[in-house]
Amino acid sequence: MAKIKNGSSNKMDKFKGNQTIFFKNKPKIISGYSIVGPKEGRGPFGKEFDYVMKNDRFEEKSFEIAERKMLEHAILGAIEKSGLVPKQIDMLLSGDLLNQIISSSYAARAFDMTYLGLFGACSSMAESLAIGATLVDAGHFKNVACATSSHFSTAERQFRFPLELGSQRPPTSQWTATAAGCSIVSNTGKGPYIECATFGKVMDYGITDANNMGAAMAPAAMNTICAHFYDTKTSPKDYDLILTGDLGIFGSEMLHELMKENGYDISGKHDDCGKMMFDRTQDVLMGGSGCGCSASILNSIILKRFETKQYKKILFVATGALLSTTSTQQGESIPGVAHGIVICREEEED
Amino acid sequence: MAKIKNGSSNKMDKFKGNQTIFFKNKPKIISGYSIVGPKEGRGPFGKEFDYVMKNDRFEEKSFEIAERKMLEHAILGAIEKSGLVPKQIDMLLSGDLLNQIISSSYAARAFDMTYLGLFGACSSMAESLAIGATLVDAGHFKNVACATSSHFSTAERQFRFPLELGSQRPPTSQWTATAAGCSIVSNTGKGPYIECATFGKVMDYGITDANNMGAAMAPAAMNTICAHFYDTKTSPKDYDLILTGDLGIFGSEMLHELMKENGYDISGKHDDCGKMMFDRTQDVLMGGSGCGCSASILNSIILKRFETKQYKKILFVATGALLSTTSTQQGESIPGVAHGIVICREEEED
Repeated sequence: MAKIKNGSSNKMDKFKGNQTIFFKNKPKIISGYSIVGPKEGRGPFGKEFDYVMKNDRFEEKSFEIAERKMLEHAILGAIEKSGLVPKQIDMLLSGDLLNQIISSSYAARAFDMTYLGLFGACSSMAESLAIGATLVDAGHFKNVACATSSHFSTAERQFRFPLELGSQRPPTSQWTATAAGCSIVSNTGKGPYIECATFGKVMDYGITDANNMGAAMAPAAMNTICAHFYDTKTSPKDYDLILTGDLGIFGSEMLHELMKENGYDISGKHDDCGKMMFDRTQDVLMGGSGCGCSASILNSIILKRFETKQYKKILFVATGALLSTTSTQQGESIPGVAHGIVICREEEED
Repeated sequence: MAKIKNGSSNKMDKFKGNQTIFFKNKPKIISGYSIVGPKEGRGPFGKEFDYVMKNDRFEEKSFEIAERKMLEHAILGAIEKSGLVPKQIDMLLSGDLLNQIISSSYAARAFDMTYLGLFGACSSMAESLAIGATLVDAGHFKNVACATSSHFSTAERQFRFPLELGSQRPPTSQWTATAAGCSIVSNTGKGPYIECATFGKVMDYGITDANNMGAAMAPAAMNTICAHFYDTKTSPKDYDLILTGDLGIFGSEMLHELMKENGYDISGKHDDCGKMMFDRTQDVLMGGSGCGCSASILNSIILKRFETKQYKKILFVATGALLSTTSTQQGESIPGVAHGIVICREEEED
């Protein structure tokens, strides 16, 4: 197997060169819509989101119903922005963090379109775009909606402690973003296109601390990004941005170290949705997390930067920590997975 | 919109004719492997499974680890039967019933292949085959593993009550099968091929009884089967078998009624994996359920009947109930979804 430049690590032997698939027909992201909670709305990019909720309950009787409503809102919003109507959307591909992904499945009930439920934890936005692009690229469908959501209050009480306990949070923990995002992927229309997708392998470096998910996910991000460079014969210089979601501050530092071990310096090119969502004054410790974090960042500020021609080509790598409360209680370590897609500006726009 | 023959119901207006995708390159199921628990091994088709566990714990310290081990066993078994080795498998597509699909994600950790996590509850086996076939058909991957699992003891304590309580089960309830199955889908080799896939929409007729999932899923099965007939211009007579998984006895009766309302009599063609898994003497009430039920039936007796040329063409429709304990506790009704694939014998085998 060919060695990567500066190949300083035998980990590269893992890359067999078959994790990336290329699309022939340039499936396009013709619109994106983002909705966030009030805390996220006060973050550095708060003004970029399409909708900022006044409160986390979104006028519903439970946080779970609020999360579902956010997701429905994002899906409808993206469809509306695309200039299409719901009956023109062939499929909804969606995932979230709740047990049995009820936010997605119940949101799907509101729409008259086929539905694929996905679970890749916080990697779900990239997973939905990768599969959605595959279906559109092959000509099976014309328009698909790719969406994910997360909600601080539904995630906290499911994975950690009820909010009422007021538990202190350890310094490496991240803050589940209350956010949802949806992209419409289409075979016609205008917008940046998805050039290829790199699917991730499950990586586990033995992290057992469910309050340090950045560390649990960084190896998966490293593996997918290295596999992507290997498969596509590219390197960091070929991208305007390498955007992970959501490693947070600590996980991002770990990723930089792991990439260096593999001969890549991504420090000038890398940003992370978890770091972008909040600023340090917001008491979120290592930054944001949750499927909705990368979904809302991607479908707001990132797509806008394509419109303003700030970006020509980016690598978006969403990372997921594949734990459950049961696996944690049984003493298991936390596996991670990361899926990546390359988004490019259409050449005719130059 | 064209009317279906005997179109006796306005429900047919829901079929827009774009739920089915057709494969051009005949992605083949080149092998299948099934593993079941001891109770399932005593069922009518017990002798057909590749492996019957001596006990539900599979020599592990928890039922959750046993389920994961079953799934790993099924994946390795299917790869071995296909004549391939694990490094030739490009992707694992897997789902299960546990929160955050830990059986699938932790099983994926054991393999050096990319991983897509799916959640469609008991529809997951058809979902994984449909997406796996899409990826193989488009030439993106050569060989993929499509797998699901379920385990009576992990599902009971997660969704209902700990076994130790000895709770009585209502008459409409089904018995989550302790079972896993895996198919290898490939662009070369011998085996029946997947002709097309029909993706389902989420249907909800307002059933709120989590012990009557057959009734919750039957409308989704009806919708997908009718959409399939509409899209493919076929009817029950074109199939040797219409196999649902897992409606059980009551859900199957309801499906027959719903199909009749839409002008189709499937009574002579239909069977259900939940009905096939157990016989009435095994105290399972309405029959089996769980992702592993349809996965193990499909990957044993059904594939064997293709080998013996008993079948030329079947429609396999796996059905999922998209509830969680939270949605039930919040008084929500139970949405269902069903995805279908058509499996055909290769013509050259005639």
